Amino acid sequence: MTHRIRKACILTGGGDAPGLNAVLRAFVKTCEHEGIAVVGSEDGFEGLIQSSRRLVSLTSKEVRGILPKGGSILGCSNTANPFHYGPEGKDVSQDVVTRIKDNDIDVLVLVGGDGTMNMGLQLQKLGIPIIGVPKTIDNDLGATDITFGFETAVSTATWAIDALHSTAAAHVRVMITEVMGRYAGWIALSAGIAGGADVILLPEMPYDIERVARKIRQRSDQGITFSVVVIGEGAHPKGGAAAEVAKGREGHLPRLGGAGRELEEALEGKVNHEIRTTVLGHLQRGGSPCAFDRTLGTRFGVMAAKLCVEGLVGRMVALKSTKVTSVSLEDAVNHPKLVTAECDLVATARAIGIELGA
Amino acid sequence: MTHRIRKACILTGGGDAPGLNAVLRAFVKTCEHEGIAVVGSEDGFEGLIQSSRRLVSLTSKEVRGILPKGGSILGCSNTANPFHYGPEGKDVSQDVVTRIKDNDIDVLVLVGGDGTMNMGLQLQKLGIPIIGVPKTIDNDLGATDITFGFETAVSTATWAIDALHSTAAAHVRVMITEVMGRYAGWIALSAGIAGGADVILLPEMPYDIERVARKIRQRSDQGITFSVVVIGEGAHPKGGAAAEVAKGREGHLPRLGGAGRELEEALEGKVNHEIRTTVLGHLQRGGSPCAFDRTLGTRFGVMAAKLCVEGLVGRMVALKSTKVTSVSLEDAVNHPKLVTAECDLVATARAIGIELGA
Amino acid sequence: MTHRIRKACILTGGGDAPGLNAVLRAFVKTCEHEGIAVVGSEDGFEGLIQSSRRLVSLTSKEVRGILPKGGSILGCSNTANPFHYGPEGKDVSQDVVTRIKDNDIDVLVLVGGDGTMNMGLQLQKLGIPIIGVPKTIDNDLGATDITFGFETAVSTATWAIDALHSTAAAHVRVMITEVMGRYAGWIALSAGIAGGADVILLPEMPYDIERVARKIRQRSDQGITFSVVVIGEGAHPKGGAAAEVAKGREGHLPRLGGAGRELEEALEGKVNHEIRTTVLGHLQRGGSPCAFDRTLGTRFGVMAAKLCVEGLVGRMVALKSTKVTSVSLEDAVNHPKLVTAECDLVATARAIGIELGA
Amino acid sequence: MTHRIRKACILTGGGDAPGLNAVLRAFVKTCEHEGIAVVGSEDGFEGLIQSSRRLVSLTSKEVRGILPKGGSILGCSNTANPFHYGPEGKDVSQDVVTRIKDNDIDVLVLVGGDGTMNMGLQLQKLGIPIIGVPKTIDNDLGATDITFGFETAVSTATWAIDALHSTAAAHVRVMITEVMGRYAGWIALSAGIAGGADVILLPEMPYDIERVARKIRQRSDQGITFSVVVIGEGAHPKGGAAAEVAKGREGHLPRLGGAGRELEEALEGKVNHEIRTTVLGHLQRGGSPCAFDRTLGTRFGVMAAKLCVEGLVGRMVALKSTKVTSVSLEDAVNHPKLVTAECDLVATARAIGIELGA
Repeated sequence: MTHRIRKACILTGGGDAPGLNAVLRAFVKTCEHEGIAVVGSEDGFEGLIQSSRRLVSLTSKEVRGILPKGGSILGCSNTANPFHYGPEGKDVSQDVVTRIKDNDIDVLVLVGGDGTMNMGLQLQKLGIPIIGVPKTIDNDLGATDITFGFETAVSTATWAIDALHSTAAAHVRVMITEVMGRYAGWIALSAGIAGGADVILLPEMPYDIERVARKIRQRSDQGITFSVVVIGEGAHPKGGAAAEVAKGREGHLPRLGGAGRELEEALEGKVNHEIRTTVLGHLQRGGSPCAFDRTLGTRFGVMAAKLCVEGLVGRMVALKSTKVTSVSLEDAVNHPKLVTAECDLVATARAIGIELGA
Repeated sequence: MTHRIRKACILTGGGDAPGLNAVLRAFVKTCEHEGIAVVGSEDGFEGLIQSSRRLVSLTSKEVRGILPKGGSILGCSNTANPFHYGPEGKDVSQDVVTRIKDNDIDVLVLVGGDGTMNMGLQLQKLGIPIIGVPKTIDNDLGATDITFGFETAVSTATWAIDALHSTAAAHVRVMITEVMGRYAGWIALSAGIAGGADVILLPEMPYDIERVARKIRQRSDQGITFSVVVIGEGAHPKGGAAAEVAKGREGHLPRLGGAGRELEEALEGKVNHEIRTTVLGHLQRGGSPCAFDRTLGTRFGVMAAKLCVEGLVGRMVALKSTKVTSVSLEDAVNHPKLVTAECDLVATARAIGIELGA
Repeated sequence: MTHRIRKACILTGGGDAPGLNAVLRAFVKTCEHEGIAVVGSEDGFEGLIQSSRRLVSLTSKEVRGILPKGGSILGCSNTANPFHYGPEGKDVSQDVVTRIKDNDIDVLVLVGGDGTMNMGLQLQKLGIPIIGVPKTIDNDLGATDITFGFETAVSTATWAIDALHSTAAAHVRVMITEVMGRYAGWIALSAGIAGGADVILLPEMPYDIERVARKIRQRSDQGITFSVVVIGEGAHPKGGAAAEVAKGREGHLPRLGGAGRELEEALEGKVNHEIRTTVLGHLQRGGSPCAFDRTLGTRFGVMAAKLCVEGLVGRMVALKSTKVTSVSLEDAVNHPKLVTAECDLVATARAIGIELGA
Repeated sequence: MTHRIRKACILTGGGDAPGLNAVLRAFVKTCEHEGIAVVGSEDGFEGLIQSSRRLVSLTSKEVRGILPKGGSILGCSNTANPFHYGPEGKDVSQDVVTRIKDNDIDVLVLVGGDGTMNMGLQLQKLGIPIIGVPKTIDNDLGATDITFGFETAVSTATWAIDALHSTAAAHVRVMITEVMGRYAGWIALSAGIAGGADVILLPEMPYDIERVARKIRQRSDQGITFSVVVIGEGAHPKGGAAAEVAKGREGHLPRLGGAGRELEEALEGKVNHEIRTTVLGHLQRGGSPCAFDRTLGTRFGVMAAKLCVEGLVGRMVALKSTKVTSVSLEDAVNHPKLVTAECDLVATARAIGIELGA
């Protein structure tokens, strides 16, 4: 599909991720240089749903100085969905279509995860040209090697594991760190390796609590009085809950939260250590994006603008090896990328003796 | 009291704090230069209680490169108490006294908080010369202007509040951060001011939930969609629990933990925001000490060694204004320093419009 | 002197320091609450000298979100001096006086170092009420225990020394780090102790190159192949240049810069190591202020506003022990605080075996 | 080539890079698990050249806790070359061959850059089985997508540019930051984009000083009083020196250093700003490796061990897209990867208006 574009509307959907402002800045600067006007919809789809007054003009002036900042200057929304809006779940998609047309918008640029891209596909069927920019700190999108936000989340989690390491080692302690990643274990696996964890537990591999306890006891036998455990928020022990997780991706997703505490309780009595659990939570989304994510976000923003210039809609920006390219939006959505037993990082973890509990 | 010292035993009691290694390094280096031998008791009092084999020789070689490290190379213990040891709470203080004498130790240098200093006072009555070095990240010791570990804890908490700020601002959110400090609000107050919090809740001032909610709504009325709340782990709402806290310092201390969640639940329904709570926990103890704490720890370690050289026992090191000095151990213990409504930092917080809930 | 104040003008003079924005934010918020209007003069005195259009209104809106930012939202100027302005050094002080009166400004609040405070004293003689807030990363003002900006500079320098430590240790190297501080050695001394330096050289103590070389060789003899040296930008070897420095504070200040290289050249041939010099320079002024400086800057800003409320002019804000107070402006200026051989930190450094070269 | 390996010797050659310890730790742990003994040669080739006593046994005990540390526990050497050793440049390669045989070493694992790999090729011709692990913070090796150390260097440089940004913006200033990278511009380009530089100057593109000055003046015309310039240490203006650089890679390399000052002097008089230059230097090599480099170093170390297990010698580890693999050592050396005008990052920089001076 090609399409002449004079005015673009951009929005940041779903939860925030470090690097969103890098995307916005690069997109706006490149468009300005190419003679394409840009407006931003505030708070994800909220702006487009509520009022044209919430579509703000974006020029190089508005995006000055935002590169090192966390969050999104446009605001994000996990809840605003044109096809299921408000407490009653109303379909307001026609309002969005009308608002886009009334404002002479030629393309809607969506910066978001799988959920946002799905809304994009549906809007595309209603005649709205869409360009996607993948965003998820969980790194679970199959269409791109990596997304911005992930490396910052991993850096923060690694910093935290380092800090907890020193306090663990000063006591006879097991330190559990629960990290984000939803149903994917990429943050846990990467930060666990980088932080020197002894045990890493992943959503994709239900864990055997006996293996975890055995690893900790083996370390005690070697005279090492502490152990560092990293657990993804979606991880669960083998058995009932695990089955639920397996179902998770199609049907009802099991509720996240509590994975660290669940592990702590399961370990009590099986090891002779004090156990302390830290839930990193939103720290992993916040703060200034790391250099890698600023550069990747900038590259993604530039590519989105180039797709506008060329009128290539129905595409999602993607990184393949060292190149930024684009893929068809249809192909991009609903292809989650999960940790598998065969992947490089799992083999690396096993080779250096990290216990994966499975 | 003066006393000729040829051999000192040092230990790090209670929970770990950033800067312990700075104290050990400076103490050992200064003693070595002055011809005083040093041994360290592993895991607080555990070493002295269990075996002479757990008294390790410390020379400049053992303390090389430890300055930037968190934790304590000797290990810490919150539980090892010579007067109340093990599951049955046995009094093993005579074993400790005997072990000290058998090892020709002339002075016991205790790096610890109020609990450890109290054990020191009791041992002193049994004839053991004691020198104390104050340690608490909570900064609640009346005898010294400040202790090492506090500034690192405040820095970490401030960094976290900064990070949560950006993700709060990207959504319509109230971000609650629960920080350490036990029954003192110094970390909450300092990190809250440094992190630009809108609301700070302290253990010393039971909070009125209506005032908290009103502040958040006022901000909404001004068009600011998010608010940042910092709460000390010992803070509670006005009413039943508060009375318990007031009692806390004499009798049974109320159990810490859950202050953030309690606030979250109390706020639900009173404000139109998503609320997210982050409990920083052990992150605040861990990691490399900040420059301030490394320097202060070094100064304290040197002063402890100088007290050894001069044979001045029964003293605790203290900072008064810009000078490191010492105070009588008797005067030092049991004088907690709590936040008061009149103190400088409370006045500062109020002047710039921070809501303290009381 | 007391004086009814309805409108204040604030400016940030001299070089920038981390924490300036904390002062501005706290001053403006407190004044707003007290009903005092505030304008800011852009680029230090430039605004007041050039045009009323460069006096910008400051309300809580303008200072929102600036607390974690380095620099000054008003801009700074090292050169704008009402008594010696422009390439010809014109006296434009009457223009400043007139502009202050024309704009109904009741007090001029100067955030700056000794130079700026001296201009304040002169303007006071011309009838302009002055309040001062001390600012210097060098910490060389006698009237206050400490100033904001210093601790951030020390933290950055310590971080750098840590980083250089690891690369020094991987090679057979002497790593020299040149830090700021002008004619005072406080940054060098504090960061040197916190960073575990082996040698610290200060402007106040001209160094004997033989002592420096001997220390490095002694370490080699002990099997330690690297050494870390911290040198203040104003430090010089014993002899000619040193005399110049001694004169420095009254008459012509010797030009700063090159201290690290001078040391490197002097060491060449005296030790068998590769020598590498890093000049930290402006890194020490930049970046987000540390928690300590944000809190101290906030306290100073609040105190400046309280002096306005009480009409107490001719005063400079100061920290004494744990209290923020104020001192007479006359007493504050021209009392530099330099490192002395007797001071606590020098004794600490010597006790743990740091070579001071003198 | 395959080859049965029971004992491996590993060394870290050339300058240090963040992540070396991650490689060593992962290599040793994996080998230990696979029953392969490991010794390390201290200070690059020095150990192998000097004495069997400088070949130290490495087990999981020796590599415990080293993951977050900068430098190399084995020490590095830029100078120890078996084919050109000492002040007279003697060929001591036969001593190295003999020492390897005398110590029953089956493979030599070289962690190093192009220089070290070239020595490896030469030793291979003398019958020594070689496995290579690529190391360079400059990222200029054609055989691998990326090497460990680079991302840490970029992070540090980005942090520095951020810090200098705030102090630049507080004054009317041009801030020049000189970064590492030798004859390749990858650090300058990546850190410049991530740090929001206005001008980035690369070794591969001799710069036109007029274009640089024009960009700065354009910003002034838009009311932006400061500019941030990032320059690679190997960058030079168009003209004489540039030609020398072009020759650089084959014949005599032009001496590095001074690029920032050269630019500063060339700009003086062409712009109305104070200009300040900061040379980051060894800061970029030092300090704790970032999460990315710890994980990549770990993956490389595991792969080197797996090559040992399989007896695949004459190979160098490499990253291709998301997979760690290996390439022939012959193919790996002497294929530098330089920035080209067509590459993705250059196009990104141009799209958002960064001036590249060419």
